[in-house]
Amino acid sequence: MSNKSSAVSISVVRRLPRYYRFLSELLKDGKTRISSRELSDMMQLTASQIRQDLNCFGGFGQQGYGYNVKDLHEEIANILGLNKIQNCILIGVGNLGEAIANHIDFEKRGFKLVGAFDINPELIGTKIGGVVIRHSDEIEEFCKDDPPKIAVLCIPKESAQAIAERLVALGIKGFWNFSHFDLTLSYDDIVVENVHLSDSLMTLCYRVNEIFK
Amino acid sequence: MSNKSSAVSISVVRRLPRYYRFLSELLKDGKTRISSRELSDMMQLTASQIRQDLNCFGGFGQQGYGYNVKDLHEEIANILGLNKIQNCILIGVGNLGEAIANHIDFEKRGFKLVGAFDINPELIGTKIGGVVIRHSDEIEEFCKDDPPKIAVLCIPKESAQAIAERLVALGIKGFWNFSHFDLTLSYDDIVVENVHLSDSLMTLCYRVNEIFK
Repeated sequence: MSNKSSAVSISVVRRLPRYYRFLSELLKDGKTRISSRELSDMMQLTASQIRQDLNCFGGFGQQGYGYNVKDLHEEIANILGLNKIQNCILIGVGNLGEAIANHIDFEKRGFKLVGAFDINPELIGTKIGGVVIRHSDEIEEFCKDDPPKIAVLCIPKESAQAIAERLVALGIKGFWNFSHFDLTLSYDDIVVENVHLSDSLMTLCYRVNEIFK
Repeated sequence: MSNKSSAVSISVVRRLPRYYRFLSELLKDGKTRISSRELSDMMQLTASQIRQDLNCFGGFGQQGYGYNVKDLHEEIANILGLNKIQNCILIGVGNLGEAIANHIDFEKRGFKLVGAFDINPELIGTKIGGVVIRHSDEIEEFCKDDPPKIAVLCIPKESAQAIAERLVALGIKGFWNFSHFDLTLSYDDIVVENVHLSDSLMTLCYRVNEIFK
């Protein structure tokens, strides 16, 4: 399956967390199986889209039965790699960094927060999300022996590119970037997920204004 | 142009804020014009994609000249409706709601925060993002005379659907929903932007694990 999933397009990959969320809800509600028709109604996708998406990973449905909720939930967790916990560090503990550390359940999403860094002297030594906040100058020392794989960037855009390059040199392989800047790194083995909250708000602005036209 | 833009697909609309961001950067750097080739290098889109996107709104480039940065920036702001400021309210002032209120520059994105609501007695009467936090029971009273158009939902998923329906009855037309739940409202004139931070984190998990395969 490893080869099969490597060829999967990013747009299919981006839909998987949504399947996972809906299946988590079904599990919680005690549902044991679901037809692709029911799933498609819930998720507002066509049944054929769902079959196509899941077929990319080998397909898990059975004609006339539908999907076993628990199995499919588990399979998607495996595909996403949620059970191979990778260490991550948080860079920037301002408003947003603090909210991310407190609000996101990293361990349910495949990650463990092991360090947090900021340059604000008032924050150094305090704790967030179960870890002590260190000064950003200490990142190199911290990463020396057992470099984390992921960095969550909640810093102003001006410093994002420079710190990202510093982190790549230390062995960081992935960035969850909130810094209002499209981080681009020209290495084949580095991945970046840019989160642009303002883009989403501007899209909402457009769509709301369309109503009033 | 109003008719023309109504037919624009949501995927083009979703790219507009990104154009707007890059153009804002160019403006800040004092750049007055840019070719579609340069813009395509910066944005990692093909030049033809850029031309196609902008042509949906009438096209703003000139053969042999490229784009006037200031004009294009302004046009996109107009298309997005960023200068028609709509009032919005924040529902839920926990970690995430607080960060959103403090971190997002609403007025630059077409909105003005006019109220915030929570049920935590310790928060009621304190201020966030320049507004006083009121008890959620007061939403009806608050919206009576001059209902805001938008609600930002930073509440647990269990309460999201119910409060959204209450807000629709009060005249809310759009939701920026962070509640880890795909809000669906079956009204033609209501728009929802769901923001799923965990989905983005799970996508990162998949992509990082692909590196190590």
